[in-house]
Amino acid sequence: MSITVVGSVAFDSITTPSGSRERCLGGAATYFALAASYFTSVRVVAVVGSDFTAAEESVFTARSIDLAGLERASGKSFFWAGNYLTSLNEAKTERTDLNVFADFNPQIPVSYLDAEFLFLANIDPVLQLRVRQALPAARLVCGDTMNYWINDHREALLRVLPQMDVLLINDTEARLLSGESNPLRAARRILTLGPRALIVKHGEYGATAYFGPGIFHDPAEQHHPFRSPALPLEEVVDPTGAGDSFAGGFYGYIASQPALTPAVFRRALFYGSVMGSFTVERFGTERLQHLTRAEIDARFEVLRQISHLDA
Amino acid sequence: MSITVVGSVAFDSITTPSGSRERCLGGAATYFALAASYFTSVRVVAVVGSDFTAAEESVFTARSIDLAGLERASGKSFFWAGNYLTSLNEAKTERTDLNVFADFNPQIPVSYLDAEFLFLANIDPVLQLRVRQALPAARLVCGDTMNYWINDHREALLRVLPQMDVLLINDTEARLLSGESNPLRAARRILTLGPRALIVKHGEYGATAYFGPGIFHDPAEQHHPFRSPALPLEEVVDPTGAGDSFAGGFYGYIASQPALTPAVFRRALFYGSVMGSFTVERFGTERLQHLTRAEIDARFEVLRQISHLDA
Repeated sequence: MSITVVGSVAFDSITTPSGSRERCLGGAATYFALAASYFTSVRVVAVVGSDFTAAEESVFTARSIDLAGLERASGKSFFWAGNYLTSLNEAKTERTDLNVFADFNPQIPVSYLDAEFLFLANIDPVLQLRVRQALPAARLVCGDTMNYWINDHREALLRVLPQMDVLLINDTEARLLSGESNPLRAARRILTLGPRALIVKHGEYGATAYFGPGIFHDPAEQHHPFRSPALPLEEVVDPTGAGDSFAGGFYGYIASQPALTPAVFRRALFYGSVMGSFTVERFGTERLQHLTRAEIDARFEVLRQISHLDA
Repeated sequence: MSITVVGSVAFDSITTPSGSRERCLGGAATYFALAASYFTSVRVVAVVGSDFTAAEESVFTARSIDLAGLERASGKSFFWAGNYLTSLNEAKTERTDLNVFADFNPQIPVSYLDAEFLFLANIDPVLQLRVRQALPAARLVCGDTMNYWINDHREALLRVLPQMDVLLINDTEARLLSGESNPLRAARRILTLGPRALIVKHGEYGATAYFGPGIFHDPAEQHHPFRSPALPLEEVVDPTGAGDSFAGGFYGYIASQPALTPAVFRRALFYGSVMGSFTVERFGTERLQHLTRAEIDARFEVLRQISHLDA
């Protein structure tokens, strides 16, 4: 089944200990869509400016990503500049120009109205809710958020969380959203806010999934948390987009499967880690544009070997 | 096979968000010995003062731990006071009184001379080397160290590392020892310093093992790193001794097995995580004194379920 993603398509200027790139294609929806495209078909809802040319468009179309929902506005695309010179774990933002993204009002093409899998990337929770309501056929909704929305737009965020089946955030965001420092208690608190499952990403240490009642349509069953490892990498060239690529691999795999079972969820987390690990090996979307499913599955197998007792 | 451990037996005064304990039994050798005692017989080499009474002794003897190598010196035992009020991940030391430990010169009883498994807990690397040389029959040597020895006694440390089959340290120590911030490159560098395997502990995120040639007596074979998860815990009452308990579970399991294979090493890491998770659930050694192998194996099974795709 195809996935519809709403989020940013942007240009990024990035500096890391490995070098720099000026105005490379970026944005949460971009990384998500590319990563998910190796598993299922993907439709994008986003806005770009006139600086988005045929060259950028071809990055999506080469992966058969549907751009019917990509609005072309007059003005410039969202631009972000940042560096990872202090830490590869956290970007230092040098500049954010919202540009056409400041007035983003997502437009849903008629051809998207049958969307069953919806990913709400990290944007204003008011827009996340609006898109979710515009796509009532969506039967599995997954979403991301960040510190800014948690701190300054909490009420809007709390309205969209019950609409999410799966919320994907990182450790810091989980602490902020829950007000709890213990990870397990933080997760339990967040599950009371609406999402039926929570994935907390730990960067180089992988991710942990927590399950509330109802996610597997079996309210009686209790499910342990699940720990998904990350691949030890020789070099992290550019961490930008790792989380969105994780989300794309995770959700893309789920959408490609006949049903969401605990086993599918666990395998999806492994595919999330795999896609994140590819992204950080090169700048921007470079690595994510030219993968094969065989490479992806080979890395999935490595992830299994490094974490399983009887591998 | 029995394990011989050299390290500290101490009294700790501990404050955490859950409360306080005054002068409870502690020390690396204590936690290690108790944790390992659920898997194999354990012999201790350490020094205590006259404040070490029958009450403390009974904690060891109740677990059949051999104290023939426990020297009774005149004076007071090693004393440490610290708190975890700022962070459960790092102790803030309030006081360290070395007392009789300041002149510790490990005495090896004749009954220990057949020791095949030796654990060098976190003490002066000069003493670690001396004990290792006093026990030439030891065929598997595992050891710990800490920032202080890495920074201020590096030469002595570099002399003992080639004597270790397995070095157990944490992320910060791995960065310091290697001078590398990338975890995989840090591990490779450390493996060139002598140990045939390296375990890097990540606290709440588990641990990663890295293997050099020769650890499994098969120099041709390349082994992937192995990621061992930690159990998500509702409450961490007292983190003191978690690392030494991890080491005890890890090494105790290995010593209980007929041979060190990759599968045994992986299972040993899981048992390490299990023993660490018990320790932090109560103050000091409280939880570690009264476990059963059935409880331990049940938690091992949970750890498998939370990390395996087909659990």
